[in-house]
Amino acid sequence: MIVVLKHGVTPDKKKQLISWLQNLGLRIHVSDGEFQTVLGLVGDTSSVDMDLVESLEIVDSVKRVTEPFKFCNRKFHPEDLVVEAGGVKIGGGNFAMIAGPCSVESEEQIVAVARAVKASGADLLRGGAFKPRTSPYDFAGLGAPGLELLKIARAETGLPFVTELMNIMDLDLFADVDVIQVGARNMQNYDLLRELGHVDKPILLKRGLANTLKELLMSAEYIMASGNERVMLCERGIRTFDDYTRNTLDLAAVPMLQELSHLPILVDPSHATGIARLVPSMALAATAAGADGLMIEVHNDPIHAMCDGAQSLRPDEYDALARKVRDIRELMI
Amino acid sequence: MIVVLKHGVTPDKKKQLISWLQNLGLRIHVSDGEFQTVLGLVGDTSSVDMDLVESLEIVDSVKRVTEPFKFCNRKFHPEDLVVEAGGVKIGGGNFAMIAGPCSVESEEQIVAVARAVKASGADLLRGGAFKPRTSPYDFAGLGAPGLELLKIARAETGLPFVTELMNIMDLDLFADVDVIQVGARNMQNYDLLRELGHVDKPILLKRGLANTLKELLMSAEYIMASGNERVMLCERGIRTFDDYTRNTLDLAAVPMLQELSHLPILVDPSHATGIARLVPSMALAATAAGADGLMIEVHNDPIHAMCDGAQSLRPDEYDALARKVRDIRELMI
Amino acid sequence: MIVVLKHGVTPDKKKQLISWLQNLGLRIHVSDGEFQTVLGLVGDTSSVDMDLVESLEIVDSVKRVTEPFKFCNRKFHPEDLVVEAGGVKIGGGNFAMIAGPCSVESEEQIVAVARAVKASGADLLRGGAFKPRTSPYDFAGLGAPGLELLKIARAETGLPFVTELMNIMDLDLFADVDVIQVGARNMQNYDLLRELGHVDKPILLKRGLANTLKELLMSAEYIMASGNERVMLCERGIRTFDDYTRNTLDLAAVPMLQELSHLPILVDPSHATGIARLVPSMALAATAAGADGLMIEVHNDPIHAMCDGAQSLRPDEYDALARKVRDIRELMI
Amino acid sequence: MIVVLKHGVTPDKKKQLISWLQNLGLRIHVSDGEFQTVLGLVGDTSSVDMDLVESLEIVDSVKRVTEPFKFCNRKFHPEDLVVEAGGVKIGGGNFAMIAGPCSVESEEQIVAVARAVKASGADLLRGGAFKPRTSPYDFAGLGAPGLELLKIARAETGLPFVTELMNIMDLDLFADVDVIQVGARNMQNYDLLRELGHVDKPILLKRGLANTLKELLMSAEYIMASGNERVMLCERGIRTFDDYTRNTLDLAAVPMLQELSHLPILVDPSHATGIARLVPSMALAATAAGADGLMIEVHNDPIHAMCDGAQSLRPDEYDALARKVRDIRELMI
Repeated sequence: MIVVLKHGVTPDKKKQLISWLQNLGLRIHVSDGEFQTVLGLVGDTSSVDMDLVESLEIVDSVKRVTEPFKFCNRKFHPEDLVVEAGGVKIGGGNFAMIAGPCSVESEEQIVAVARAVKASGADLLRGGAFKPRTSPYDFAGLGAPGLELLKIARAETGLPFVTELMNIMDLDLFADVDVIQVGARNMQNYDLLRELGHVDKPILLKRGLANTLKELLMSAEYIMASGNERVMLCERGIRTFDDYTRNTLDLAAVPMLQELSHLPILVDPSHATGIARLVPSMALAATAAGADGLMIEVHNDPIHAMCDGAQSLRPDEYDALARKVRDIRELMI
Repeated sequence: MIVVLKHGVTPDKKKQLISWLQNLGLRIHVSDGEFQTVLGLVGDTSSVDMDLVESLEIVDSVKRVTEPFKFCNRKFHPEDLVVEAGGVKIGGGNFAMIAGPCSVESEEQIVAVARAVKASGADLLRGGAFKPRTSPYDFAGLGAPGLELLKIARAETGLPFVTELMNIMDLDLFADVDVIQVGARNMQNYDLLRELGHVDKPILLKRGLANTLKELLMSAEYIMASGNERVMLCERGIRTFDDYTRNTLDLAAVPMLQELSHLPILVDPSHATGIARLVPSMALAATAAGADGLMIEVHNDPIHAMCDGAQSLRPDEYDALARKVRDIRELMI
Repeated sequence: MIVVLKHGVTPDKKKQLISWLQNLGLRIHVSDGEFQTVLGLVGDTSSVDMDLVESLEIVDSVKRVTEPFKFCNRKFHPEDLVVEAGGVKIGGGNFAMIAGPCSVESEEQIVAVARAVKASGADLLRGGAFKPRTSPYDFAGLGAPGLELLKIARAETGLPFVTELMNIMDLDLFADVDVIQVGARNMQNYDLLRELGHVDKPILLKRGLANTLKELLMSAEYIMASGNERVMLCERGIRTFDDYTRNTLDLAAVPMLQELSHLPILVDPSHATGIARLVPSMALAATAAGADGLMIEVHNDPIHAMCDGAQSLRPDEYDALARKVRDIRELMI
Repeated sequence: MIVVLKHGVTPDKKKQLISWLQNLGLRIHVSDGEFQTVLGLVGDTSSVDMDLVESLEIVDSVKRVTEPFKFCNRKFHPEDLVVEAGGVKIGGGNFAMIAGPCSVESEEQIVAVARAVKASGADLLRGGAFKPRTSPYDFAGLGAPGLELLKIARAETGLPFVTELMNIMDLDLFADVDVIQVGARNMQNYDLLRELGHVDKPILLKRGLANTLKELLMSAEYIMASGNERVMLCERGIRTFDDYTRNTLDLAAVPMLQELSHLPILVDPSHATGIARLVPSMALAATAAGADGLMIEVHNDPIHAMCDGAQSLRPDEYDALARKVRDIRELMI
């Protein structure tokens, strides 16, 4: 950590600050410049409150020179993490296609969609049993019975599945789930994250609507520091001011996160755009950007979907897209 | 709800859509214009998925003409809601000053701060026992013992207190708390909101970092629709691109929310700016904007605060500010 | 245009509004619903101030059902526009690679870069002679002599070139330029846009940092309504809150703009990210998203570039990228 | 400027960078820490391209420790700047009320509004003759004749006036204007700013829709560095994601800018909200936040205003507001 002092600080005040920092167990390198003095703090600075130091009258600015995340930091884990889920490998060159409906609605629906996406080469099935909805009056998912239907679809097709957990108290119900998803709205639900650190399952962590990449990594760090290192990240669009699309897909997050972290990075073009006819081009773009996988909403009857039908592809549209994704992947090897 | 059809839709397609909408139990008023046809949907449109209808090939756009919130809608509750918490009234002309440290750190600290803010006329004490922190390595609050210290401070000063709940499983611990706070990061933790709908206590609901006013109201609606109508809203800054301040305080939210809803609206200038020296001017501005109360961080020793010291006022600074707030309030009656 | 009246409006007030609107030369279709009345305005509504009508006491909301842009609207021009610039075609399936340095610095530099990108298959050269810089103390370009150097590079390589115009008063100097660029900061410099409507040259219009797609199209409309229909759009990143990248590249803008407009859409991954090592993945992603061309910064000596060296590729890096772009393009035909 | 090197940089690479920086005329203080080396650059670093240095393979991060603005920096000008315009003082404790219509429409209109706001104690008149409009089809102002009408209103009332300049080529027409306004969309029209540096008149510079405070100050610096130090800043709302209000008024910008700069800071609550009924509370809030003045749209007949009628107060509403503003100002002295 580096602390830049203001111009004209008295030696007394400087000495006082240095000794306060030394009391925190740090060693201080002083570099007196013509216009300012710079303190270099050496040691474990994780206990130093940057904002507080920055607010001191004699301090101009403070800068952390090491990232505050360790478990998910590529510096300490140069090799790509390969996550295994229900026999499927994701990351480290293993590209995963995750497809399925927004919500599980019935056995007929989820089995039909699972069969269709399996036939188109999907690696995992997605489907929500517990759905976060902005309005208390909207369909919130089938709940526990929805999880059972996902297991039936898995049995029928062999596809492992990903599904969202919203409430720590439901954790027991998720014992036989392949991958647990943490939704965008819960990205900073820290109690939930900590609890998932004790689970022996891969976690798919979605970026919040207005969260920075550093915050996403810090949330991954919560899970990993609690014991579970099988974390995958997912970019699903951030909120900006334009109103033609639901969110703004931030594809530069893919190479940037791959540089900062060794965790796999997936992209969800369905939630990012909210418009089915934009999904294929964004899915191809994400593939070309180097994503480790895609998560795409597919529904056998979007017009009657109980949730997010507007952003769901039909199985034939998904099939055509999956072929193109494979073509681009082949160019990238 | 209004559905605008695209120019040149065939009568067949139009008929098909109308009968599909009628099957949802709606009556449809058709208005054929020169350039487009407009359908007016009459009846309970809460089950209609706007995005889906908008995605249909023949539809140009869809517009909801009634707000999706009811319990917190001023249209149905023209009178200001007055919330009572530990004998203190908030809203409907009752202005509340809530002050205290970010975190409860020790009996000595919380009692000292409580006495100081009480002497300066504060109505409620604030203090966190469970703290959401971006990093898993930061101080996360004292937990349950922190709640006990808040009760001691209450006993010493008579000030009711507000404190944040992060985890549904901790609800029992909050039985003797005066006001339960839902933090910005949990604004859309719907399971938590629903659970708080069954609690017989006032809830202080903070706006999320990138949430719209409508989303804030929908979250209030979650609590109220589950049975608890004692909800207060709190503006605490939204995330924008500037980096001089931590967040951007959106004060127009105050009169806008007061127009849309009858719930009291508080403002937290401490989290909104993250900088203690900006807190007084933003507190005065919020008062002049017509807020129903303020929530301000005060610490007896900011330099050694375990959390957010940079945005905390010292007791003497708070005292000076409280006087000015009262002066402005007097002008507003 | 549709005007939704509030619930409970008196017949008198309704009649008054209708007659006011009729005086503007409009025909009004009235649709009385159970909960609200909807007025459909037929005729030329371009003179109606939506915000004003929306502010009337009896009005709930107003919605325009036709886009306010005509010249750049695909509805009226279903065929892709193909722009020809110095013998090169852009749009309608013609993919253009534009490459070159941020700033023209010397004859040696611009000719060397032009030769290198030509050898790698570039279609046009880019290079700034007049540079918008945030600070008045930064290098602002060579000015008029820079334009002469671009002409020398064109003579040496046969590459037509694109360069930015910042000031209407410089227009005469641009007589022999192939494509005039309007930079992001001038996207809403309406006097400049209007003037470019009288020029017989293609215009490359960059999206502003915080502008919506509709605003971008309205700015194109300014140029086209003044007489020059050879306009190309360019997405170059918008401003959000993350600080790892300079801007956030909004690739969904590509298919969305192609749906709304027939104008070619280019993507500039260099300014969008500000980081050379992210440029290749974003260039490939933009290609896969269906862009009509790319605009990429290339410098023969980035370390000594006078401007934006951090986001410039070296010629060998550009060459490797151009090959991959071609591979992806081949998949897309 | 501080350059932090990555962990494990070889002595050779380090030496090479240091000598490159020394060649730029800088002295380098090297501080070798346990985990990283920090270089302190002493001398004139204004020629150093931060982004470029940051992009070097061996560099972790770069930080400027002195602000890049000088003329508008309070560090070098501790006293508040008092700007005099047509006999009215603004700044340094002199609070200015600027009021008038969005657009000048007729002699009758501008004289009537000028008289009304003068009677309510306004210090300056505002009114647009050249209007930036998003659509080329909207009313763009009366142009030069509008300026003549403003002079008539000034002659009738004695109020000096502020009006917007959009085009350098119109500068001659502005010879007898009291204050020249640079609108939000032209905040980074650098040629315009430079030209205004040669003008002997106060300039009112509005913050752009998505510009940081630093960028606003750099734009002021452009004018001041060219010779005209009579610059006033104006906060008028920034663009965020909420759609209930037109923009988000950033009132913390007021005390923050006053800390960074000695220039007067005005607030325009009319453009910030776009809704007349929110203007009074935001005007009072801005006053309580310590602004040096307000700029408010007033129209004698908002319903028939040719521009922005929705955000204009009627004269009687303005009069009531002006009284309350004065009450709050009295508290602040």
